[in-house]
Amino acid sequence: MSSQATEETPDAYEALLDHYEQISNVNAAGSILQWDQEVMMPEGGTPARSQQKSALSSLSHDLLTEEKVGEWLDELDDADLTDEQEAVVREIRREYERADRVPSDLVAEISETTSEALPKWKEAKAEDDFSIFAPVLENLIELKKEYAEHIDPDKPAYEVLFADYEPYLDLDTAERVLERLREELVPLIEDVRASDVELADPFEGDFDVDTQEDLARDVLDTLGYDFEHGRVDTAPHPFSTGNQFDARVTTRFSEDDPVGALMSTIHEFGHARYTLGLPREQYGNPLGESRDLTVHESQSRLWENHVGRSRVFWEKFLPAMKERFPQLEDVTPEEAYEAANEVYEDNLIRVEADELTYHMHIIVRFEIERELIEGDLDVEDVPQRWNDKYEEYLGIRPDTDAEGCLQDIHWSHGSFGYFPTYSLGSVLAAQIYDALEADVGDVDEKVRNGNFDVIADWLEEHVHQHGARYTTPELVEEATGEAYNADHFVDYVTEKYTDLYDL
Amino acid sequence: MSSQATEETPDAYEALLDHYEQISNVNAAGSILQWDQEVMMPEGGTPARSQQKSALSSLSHDLLTEEKVGEWLDELDDADLTDEQEAVVREIRREYERADRVPSDLVAEISETTSEALPKWKEAKAEDDFSIFAPVLENLIELKKEYAEHIDPDKPAYEVLFADYEPYLDLDTAERVLERLREELVPLIEDVRASDVELADPFEGDFDVDTQEDLARDVLDTLGYDFEHGRVDTAPHPFSTGNQFDARVTTRFSEDDPVGALMSTIHEFGHARYTLGLPREQYGNPLGESRDLTVHESQSRLWENHVGRSRVFWEKFLPAMKERFPQLEDVTPEEAYEAANEVYEDNLIRVEADELTYHMHIIVRFEIERELIEGDLDVEDVPQRWNDKYEEYLGIRPDTDAEGCLQDIHWSHGSFGYFPTYSLGSVLAAQIYDALEADVGDVDEKVRNGNFDVIADWLEEHVHQHGARYTTPELVEEATGEAYNADHFVDYVTEKYTDLYDL
Repeated sequence: MSSQATEETPDAYEALLDHYEQISNVNAAGSILQWDQEVMMPEGGTPARSQQKSALSSLSHDLLTEEKVGEWLDELDDADLTDEQEAVVREIRREYERADRVPSDLVAEISETTSEALPKWKEAKAEDDFSIFAPVLENLIELKKEYAEHIDPDKPAYEVLFADYEPYLDLDTAERVLERLREELVPLIEDVRASDVELADPFEGDFDVDTQEDLARDVLDTLGYDFEHGRVDTAPHPFSTGNQFDARVTTRFSEDDPVGALMSTIHEFGHARYTLGLPREQYGNPLGESRDLTVHESQSRLWENHVGRSRVFWEKFLPAMKERFPQLEDVTPEEAYEAANEVYEDNLIRVEADELTYHMHIIVRFEIERELIEGDLDVEDVPQRWNDKYEEYLGIRPDTDAEGCLQDIHWSHGSFGYFPTYSLGSVLAAQIYDALEADVGDVDEKVRNGNFDVIADWLEEHVHQHGARYTTPELVEEATGEAYNADHFVDYVTEKYTDLYDL
Repeated sequence: MSSQATEETPDAYEALLDHYEQISNVNAAGSILQWDQEVMMPEGGTPARSQQKSALSSLSHDLLTEEKVGEWLDELDDADLTDEQEAVVREIRREYERADRVPSDLVAEISETTSEALPKWKEAKAEDDFSIFAPVLENLIELKKEYAEHIDPDKPAYEVLFADYEPYLDLDTAERVLERLREELVPLIEDVRASDVELADPFEGDFDVDTQEDLARDVLDTLGYDFEHGRVDTAPHPFSTGNQFDARVTTRFSEDDPVGALMSTIHEFGHARYTLGLPREQYGNPLGESRDLTVHESQSRLWENHVGRSRVFWEKFLPAMKERFPQLEDVTPEEAYEAANEVYEDNLIRVEADELTYHMHIIVRFEIERELIEGDLDVEDVPQRWNDKYEEYLGIRPDTDAEGCLQDIHWSHGSFGYFPTYSLGSVLAAQIYDALEADVGDVDEKVRNGNFDVIADWLEEHVHQHGARYTTPELVEEATGEAYNADHFVDYVTEKYTDLYDL
């Protein structure tokens, strides 16, 4: 219930909010079912879980598209509302209009198909056999094209799908930013590869997974994660989910990559911290919901890259790591910092990529999924196209589909158009970080002193607390004082890698 | 969807089934949320979780009471249906008629209040302070009385509530059975207490909880629990939940009571095995749902008491226990059997009780909750009344409310009328066990050979596979060849304890 509701608040507004609250709760229940499926559910539970999720999706859809919702929205068209109320209505209207165009059956079918797709993707990845995943992927693509066609038959389907993940920065912006990143990063990557500098990599050998799990808790503790309102588990594809009362983190470990697991944990912490920073009294309405994926990813990237991959973070955190892993006794913070930022020539995996090549991974996926949705590429040709593009953009070719086009979970969720927001978010992270620093002073100094709350509190005040009050461009302006742009990011990576590789 | 549906199946039947499937899925989602809350959720998640569960409850209620459901049921009144279809309609009609009388708001309020009640109960128990729980308990009682009043204003509220848990054996039957148990068990308990026999108790000392957890997995493995369709976790109050694709078990451990934890695990296995034995192709309709609590409890009690507390079970399982706990090296199966069946004079806790005094615990709770619902007892007087009754029926008086009226979770769920089904189920377990033995021959022999599948398969065939096809009395007749009665149970405990205590 909005804190803004006054005596003069129109009845239609109150009714709309009550109704929306119920929808939010159904969606929140769906998220728990999803979390459970990925983290806790025994494999054999899938058939029933698919039906449960599908029932909730179509119920949520039915509730959102009830005739009375349209009527309330019409009534509120020229009602006298506060700015916050206007924002609430804007968000609900947008959701309503999109949902209203999509038949309930299709929503249920997509949900059920994604539930079947998840185990297929897992199996295909485990067995390194794309053909296991291909049929359900093809099915999902057709369903999502149909979905986009319902929402806006006059727009390219990919553009419509993209707006599900980032409604307020259009696909042109995404393309422009990705283009800029390619222009700036390709020569930078070339320079790095040509450099004689060899960064240290002191994290050799095996690192016990249980001990890494303890270390993940250490780092979450250090950053100020509130375990009274969250928990950490392992999942094959790390994610964060929840609400302002219960925002959970998942992570994963591999014996030979303790730094990767730490960075992944910090990344998900960034997401969860955003969620926990949403205003509690607004639970269940857009003012208590996060802005979309660009902003969400800016929060995870800020913590992962600007904090976790900084020199000072390693000065601060390395001792805790040495306590867990005494074999690291002689490692210096500088060495750890280098290891956390090394640009590997042969890395095929997006989530293990450095801050430069990362965006090449995104560009590959972006181009391929766009072709798939626009009908310019057959599903069966995905592995070939994938590998060719890796060769072209990164100079490496995956040996297996497991390390290639099957590496990421997103398509099994039916998420096409999601990937660009990873780059958009990284770009925004740099912009927000600079605004933070302009406001609170030397951030390195805070990190060195373990004063992570200064960062979290600033982000909460300038980003989290607004929920979906502002559109993405408005929120960026509000938080940073300028329009969304890639300059901060380009400056940041240029400076960082020039220094690291002595360019 | 019923496998019985034929070309001549009335449209109303198909429509009703589709609709009911959606309701089942919403309810199943609610169960996952409940499991998560008790097993996984961080404490701080409660406010949002309460709203989520409440939203699902009222949605489920709204769906069930939609006008068209009544219309379909009317249409089916004199339709030509198969026996199975008749059963499906009978079950849905019963649910519909009860739900239709209760306002949606009240359903939501009850759900929200139970969500708040759970942490209050936990806190009250942890701090041994009934006054923390009392206000919300009082609130729940009022709400449940109101609920019963809506369903049937002409019947005593407790009778109406009881029918939520056991719709087909009436409260008179419950009273008669409890009366019979009191008559038979009180003298038996007196004889046991007067006996000179001292049973062995070789499980002294501390038993590492992590190792007990491994042992719980061992026992579930031994019994044939299908981990592809289930999992085991710890919860402060053990329970089992799920569906035929994913039926989970929870258990709890205490350092000084490894046998108690094992028995609790076996008990929950019995519930889960019932759920997993429901026909998969009937998921989402009454033919794929379990019969009510009496039958459910018969399955858990059969495994816990008739299998787990038998001599032959300990012959079979003790070696596995010794492997985990080498300090038990010298323990004999007979000693373990005695320990698993000792009647402790000073046991205050229902779930730790032997098979005789157990029913005294039930009778106390039954009498007190009935008084509460009928308005004959004030909430504030519960601890006093509880302690007085324990003194009267069991000759012991709790020192604390944590060990007294706060020991069980059920009231925090708003479950009043649930407790009698524990005794009704124990009684039925003995009757079913005798039918099983009459059919497959010496069950001890199967247990001795680790042939637990014979038991599970028989139960699946004669009980589980029927879902809610038959009413409780019909199912008992179908499975055992005779009407529900307490004779088998009385014979069973008389023989067992006469032998154990040399009476």
